[in-house]
This record gives sequence, structure tokens and C-alpha cells, in this order.
Amino acid sequence: MNIAIIVAAGRGARMGGGVDKLFLELAGAPVIAHTWRQFDRCPAIAELVFVVRPDAREAFRAVAAGQGFRKPFHFADGGAERQDSVWNGLATAPDATSLVAIHDGARPCVTPALIAAVLEAARETGAAVAASRLTDTVKESADGRHISRHLERDRLWAVQTPQAFRLEVIRRAIATAREQGRVFTDDTAACELIGQPVRLVAGDTPNPKVTTPHDLPAIERLLQH
Amino acid sequence: MNIAIIVAAGRGARMGGGVDKLFLELAGAPVIAHTWRQFDRCPAIAELVFVVRPDAREAFRAVAAGQGFRKPFHFADGGAERQDSVWNGLATAPDATSLVAIHDGARPCVTPALIAAVLEAARETGAAVAASRLTDTVKESADGRHISRHLERDRLWAVQTPQAFRLEVIRRAIATAREQGRVFTDDTAACELIGQPVRLVAGDTPNPKVTTPHDLPAIERLLQH
Repeated sequence: MNIAIIVAAGRGARMGGGVDKLFLELAGAPVIAHTWRQFDRCPAIAELVFVVRPDAREAFRAVAAGQGFRKPFHFADGGAERQDSVWNGLATAPDATSLVAIHDGARPCVTPALIAAVLEAARETGAAVAASRLTDTVKESADGRHISRHLERDRLWAVQTPQAFRLEVIRRAIATAREQGRVFTDDTAACELIGQPVRLVAGDTPNPKVTTPHDLPAIERLLQH
Repeated sequence: MNIAIIVAAGRGARMGGGVDKLFLELAGAPVIAHTWRQFDRCPAIAELVFVVRPDAREAFRAVAAGQGFRKPFHFADGGAERQDSVWNGLATAPDATSLVAIHDGARPCVTPALIAAVLEAARETGAAVAASRLTDTVKESADGRHISRHLERDRLWAVQTPQAFRLEVIRRAIATAREQGRVFTDDTAACELIGQPVRLVAGDTPNPKVTTPHDLPAIERLLQH
């Protein structure tokens, strides 16, 4: 069976004012309810793990009850870094788990089709990630003041979540990162340490993350369609 | 003196339906009027060159008359590629020109402060470009299917316009590109051919480009502030 780990323990510092962005109401429901609904509806997912701050569990249970979500779910505790949160979530995976989808709670525009496509690519390759081609022209700067390298836009992809992995692949990748004292902010980067190829899965629809208050109106419009 | 070259000859294929995106009304005025107003107001700019399709000149003159813009402007013809359009604009620069700011007509949220800051950096370095740090996690893919390189987000910048150059620098850079049969979609990339360093100038406010109909509501909100 396949599980989803929903990372929902962030402090959301860029939202300002101690607001938990996951509980902001957008299009008639909290952000986290939109995210959760897509996984609840996705036939490829059997069970959900929410990685949250311990004091937030009750609020998540209330969302499930209020929205009538039906799939089994359980909690894991958030860690100091995102990588620690994912590690904690992986530790709770049932023995029968074959694939794990890892998703940001703050990406409510994900679709069941995208979740299924990323899982299928991970089943084939071992690791996969939702991605979209960049529209920006991107440069590298070593000193933050001058361009040091012009990148070819045709080769650039912005990666998002869901990311999906065979359970043993992501466990081995993050274990290796931890042994080496490395901290990665995206789960595919740890795969490089163990030589695991990662497939890119292009989404059909925008899949933005709620990061700043400026993001909210555009995301609300996407959720209303 | 400094001039601005406003590139406004694109076909806007991604807008669909033969719409000229520069003449869409946003926040009570055509997109191009918002862009033009910022350059008309910027004390560092003496004169404007609009690179347009020959049949569009009348519509641009009507915008200037309707909005009461006061700085001198003239036209150059758009070319097959953006680089050709910039080249045509450069050919019309008055002899007394020291710095050239090159700007996309479809970036209406530019500010006089940003134009002045990019010009000042170009005066010091020879070439400069408005830029913002990337918030996306970006990967390179050689085959469009798998990640081939994980990029360090802290080193990545999205470059926009205005870009600014000493006149002789940008003329020499694009002349070299043309001699070598190279076509660049951003003007700073040609600077690499002649070993010209390019400064990054971080903007304080969002500076998006009107590319698809999906961009319009967010840009209209920015223009209303």
C-alpha cells in the first residue's frame, strides 16, 4: 500500500503575525482541508500521516471531522528541520508500505491525478517529483552581486510536492544525509547522495505554495475553479 | 544622457486569440501606459525609443497623447527575434547617449527607483539587471525526464528588466552575438561573450511580466497599490 506524509509543522514565518497559514480560510475551508481532500480522494493513497506540532493535533482532528474525510490518518511530531519532520513521518510508516508520497500541507491545489502520476513514476524509478518548467530567466551568482553563470532555461525545472519514493529509497537517502550531517530542504536532493535517479513529473495545473499573504488571492482563485 | 528602449514588438502568442497584451486595460489604462508612465516620470531617463511593429505606431502615439506623457520618444521597427529588436532600437540612439535602459513593455510594475538603480549600477560596472532571488527549488534536467543537477537556491536569481548598459558595451555585445550567429533572449547573456561583468540589482517590489491571461488579475492588483 501507499501512504502520504503531509508536512504541516512549519512556523510559516513569512506569513507574519504568528498566523498558522494552514488554518487560513480560502474558498470556504482552511488551506489544510483543501490539501487533505485531494489525498482523501486519491485512490492510490491508503493512509495519511500528518507531521505537526504536538499542540496542533486537535485542530487537525477537527478538520477531519468537519470535512468528513474517511481515510485513516495518524500523527508524527515535527522536527527542527523539514528533513527531520519527514524522517519522523517515515518512522511511523506501516510495514506494508511500498510507496510514500511526501507533500507540503501548504500546497492546496494538488490534484489526485498528480499524486497518482508521481506515485507511478516513483514505482518505476524509485523517486519522482512534481515539477514545472521555469518561465523565469535564471542566473547563478557566487557573490550575490554579479552574474557568475547563465543557465539554460530549457533545462530548468521548479520542483514542488508531491514527491514520491519507494519507502526503502527515501529512508536510505535521509539516513545517509543524517549520517553525513547534511540538511536538505527538498527530499529529492538527498537521493543524489545514494545515486538514486529522480523522475520529473510535469503537472497540468498550477500547484503553488502558500508562503506569504501576497500568495493568497491567486491561490483562492485557483481553488474556486 | 540616458535613454530607454522599450521592447514592444512581441506577438504575445501565449495570450491567445491575437490579443496585443500591451493594449489590454489594467487598472484603468493599457498595460503599455503603466510601463511608459514610470519611464516618463524617472528623472534619469531623457528620451524613449519604442521598438514596435510598423502598424502599431499610431496606437502608441495615441497612448502618449491620451496620458499626457512629456518626454521625447521615437520608434524603431521590431525584428525577428528580441535581440534584433534591441539592435534596431540601439541603432536609433542619439550620439550623446551614455547609458541605455532596455525594458519589456509588458512589465508595467517597474518603478522610477528601480530604473534609476539599474542605471547607476550600469554606470559603475558597464552592465546591470533588475533581479530577484528565486523562491522555487530548481533542478537542471538534460533529458527533460530526470534531474541531472541540483542547484543551490541561495545562488539563484531570476533576472527581469530593466537591464541597463553603457551604450558601447551593449552595442559590442550584440554585434559579437550577431557575428557568431548566436541569439539571446536576454541582453545580459550577450555580455558574457565579451567578458563584460553584469551587476544584479534587487528590486523592492514585484516586477512581473504579462505573459498569459492567468497573470492579469495579480498584476492589476499590484498596479492598484
